[in-house]
Amino acid sequence: METCLSIPESQGSDPKLPMEISEIDTPAVLIDAEKLDRNLRKMANYCTKHSIALRPHTKTHKMPEIAHMQMRYGAAGIAVAKLGEAEVMADAGINDMVVVYPLWGESKWNRLADLARRARISVAMDSLPVAEGISRAAAKAGVEVGIRVEFDTGFGRCGLPLDHSSIRVAQQVLALPNLRWEGISVYPGHIMGNRAVREHDLVLENAQLDRLYALLSAAGVSHLSVSGGNTPAALLSHRFHGINEIRPGTYVFNDRNTVDAEAATYDECAATVLVTVVSTSVAHRAIVDAGSKTLTADTLLSGERKNHGYVLDHPEIELYDLSEEHGHLRIPEGSRLQIGDRLRVVPNHICPCINLQERVYVVSDDQVIDQWKVSGRGRVN
Amino acid sequence: METCLSIPESQGSDPKLPMEISEIDTPAVLIDAEKLDRNLRKMANYCTKHSIALRPHTKTHKMPEIAHMQMRYGAAGIAVAKLGEAEVMADAGINDMVVVYPLWGESKWNRLADLARRARISVAMDSLPVAEGISRAAAKAGVEVGIRVEFDTGFGRCGLPLDHSSIRVAQQVLALPNLRWEGISVYPGHIMGNRAVREHDLVLENAQLDRLYALLSAAGVSHLSVSGGNTPAALLSHRFHGINEIRPGTYVFNDRNTVDAEAATYDECAATVLVTVVSTSVAHRAIVDAGSKTLTADTLLSGERKNHGYVLDHPEIELYDLSEEHGHLRIPEGSRLQIGDRLRVVPNHICPCINLQERVYVVSDDQVIDQWKVSGRGRVN
Repeated sequence: METCLSIPESQGSDPKLPMEISEIDTPAVLIDAEKLDRNLRKMANYCTKHSIALRPHTKTHKMPEIAHMQMRYGAAGIAVAKLGEAEVMADAGINDMVVVYPLWGESKWNRLADLARRARISVAMDSLPVAEGISRAAAKAGVEVGIRVEFDTGFGRCGLPLDHSSIRVAQQVLALPNLRWEGISVYPGHIMGNRAVREHDLVLENAQLDRLYALLSAAGVSHLSVSGGNTPAALLSHRFHGINEIRPGTYVFNDRNTVDAEAATYDECAATVLVTVVSTSVAHRAIVDAGSKTLTADTLLSGERKNHGYVLDHPEIELYDLSEEHGHLRIPEGSRLQIGDRLRVVPNHICPCINLQERVYVVSDDQVIDQWKVSGRGRVN
Repeated sequence: METCLSIPESQGSDPKLPMEISEIDTPAVLIDAEKLDRNLRKMANYCTKHSIALRPHTKTHKMPEIAHMQMRYGAAGIAVAKLGEAEVMADAGINDMVVVYPLWGESKWNRLADLARRARISVAMDSLPVAEGISRAAAKAGVEVGIRVEFDTGFGRCGLPLDHSSIRVAQQVLALPNLRWEGISVYPGHIMGNRAVREHDLVLENAQLDRLYALLSAAGVSHLSVSGGNTPAALLSHRFHGINEIRPGTYVFNDRNTVDAEAATYDECAATVLVTVVSTSVAHRAIVDAGSKTLTADTLLSGERKNHGYVLDHPEIELYDLSEEHGHLRIPEGSRLQIGDRLRVVPNHICPCINLQERVYVVSDDQVIDQWKVSGRGRVN
């Protein structure tokens, strides 16, 4: 395994490393170094094999250390959700980024233009006013910003509809000064069911993509880069028509949602939350010291929406409810937990969980070998 | 209105104040100074009138500025959920705190003993091992820590059951050195339905409390302080048998849950999230720039669990779904939002929402008059 990058600032006032996992105060997020490395390599190898550019979405981890590992494994650059995340990554030396978010307002357009002075930066957007604002700010600053027009192939969130008026918007965007045309962007966020469901959805998705390409070609709009990809559908990307870049995020850690979608196993979940049993007063229940302020209240995305995480090595225990700082466990008859017992929980959704942490602990077997600051946490602007 | 406390550190690199709300980059949490003040005074006046000690739970705001306002309005001290929050508040000069959480482990016990050197500090707990650990650490440090034994009157989270063996635990705790006996603690978290439901639950709760007092009296265990209270039931506290201290948290801001429980109106919601429409590409929908990483995925606690917040002045618009950084609005026929429009959202649950913010903006009419750092955010240990 490659040596992990360590950034001195992240050490804070914490005890000297290495230390034992048993010495960590809970609750705490542990990152299994070997599993992380395996997940990073698996996706990088897949993309290399199929000649698809990998542009990992760093909203999942928000840690420059991991972004640098992804770049070393051959990523074409990174994707971010918000400008503040891009600024954190640029500060850490990442120099190729797409903000996959429609940025609005003078303040954001000016910050974007500033960023374009120190990194190759692009934006995915879906309206002329946003593109015009970016173009104006870029012209004023004398920089060029990459632009990708987002189309909606079925998720129904952002993205222009697949019709002629949308193609005219793309043509108008193409004509704006100080924008570098990079192609089109889609987000197959609706392809997230289990394997059989994904196979079915893929057929529909390809019909949508074919329609989009026909509209673009008829209007003479080039689409050099076609960016897609989420974690559940990532390893199907070579079967998406025309996709030549993907932006998966969750694959670095995986989570209960990914396992539920049959896109990973619990053994491939690199991030777990270490918790301690703090109360066993109520019969058949136990309370651990991680609630929604550590794990988030995110429910499972598909299938049965019960429970707030998976308790590793204890499939019989249900994490059935969360208060802000309490995790409520249901203990079956015959099972028993003691105050002070430690458990490891795979959260339902790892991305917002990481966003709640100041730092994570990088572990190998029973040792803490590093700790990383979640430098991008809380950057909502 | 009292002048707000301003802590220089919280200014960061943000523009000079005062500024207009329209100049704030979104998403951002706005605190209405007048509404906050009104909420603080209403609860303080209620407690004074009924001779009930008010110990606000600062997990809701995690801001020393507001804790100081609460103390100036006569609070007996504050309550916190985690030791890290207590440390932040002690650093800011708050000198009377109860950690309403069973603390486990040498590290936490030693930190607690350290805190006891600079503040009057107590812990609510529900097991002998926790009390023994605290007692040992306090003895080693030569300090005294207040202790409250928690009983479960129906919420089923922490708290000893109402039986003789629990009373024996309380007696054993009473006998431990370096602990200052403060009485008992309950948490009526189950009393959260609408007015009629709360009236019904109060009768059951009083029967439980009477049983608890009978058990304690029979064993000769004094219960000078009986601490209870959550926001939905706070203004019924004088009708809870024997309760002489309450620990409401949410009342400072209120939220959609509080309104849903008929314990506040939207006009009493002091905290809102300012958002901007960033995409209107999909028919009958609009996307705003706040998702679960700003608002949290918390669903409504009772009644219909739909929607992720209330859009002020637009009851016809539903915030029907959240991605991490996108709020999905359903726009009825005939209604129309433009990219760049700004809206204000009352979150379902304000406590974890505030915990996601680096800072909040204190506003009066259209002006930003201060900004406060959420100093206790992310303190899960």
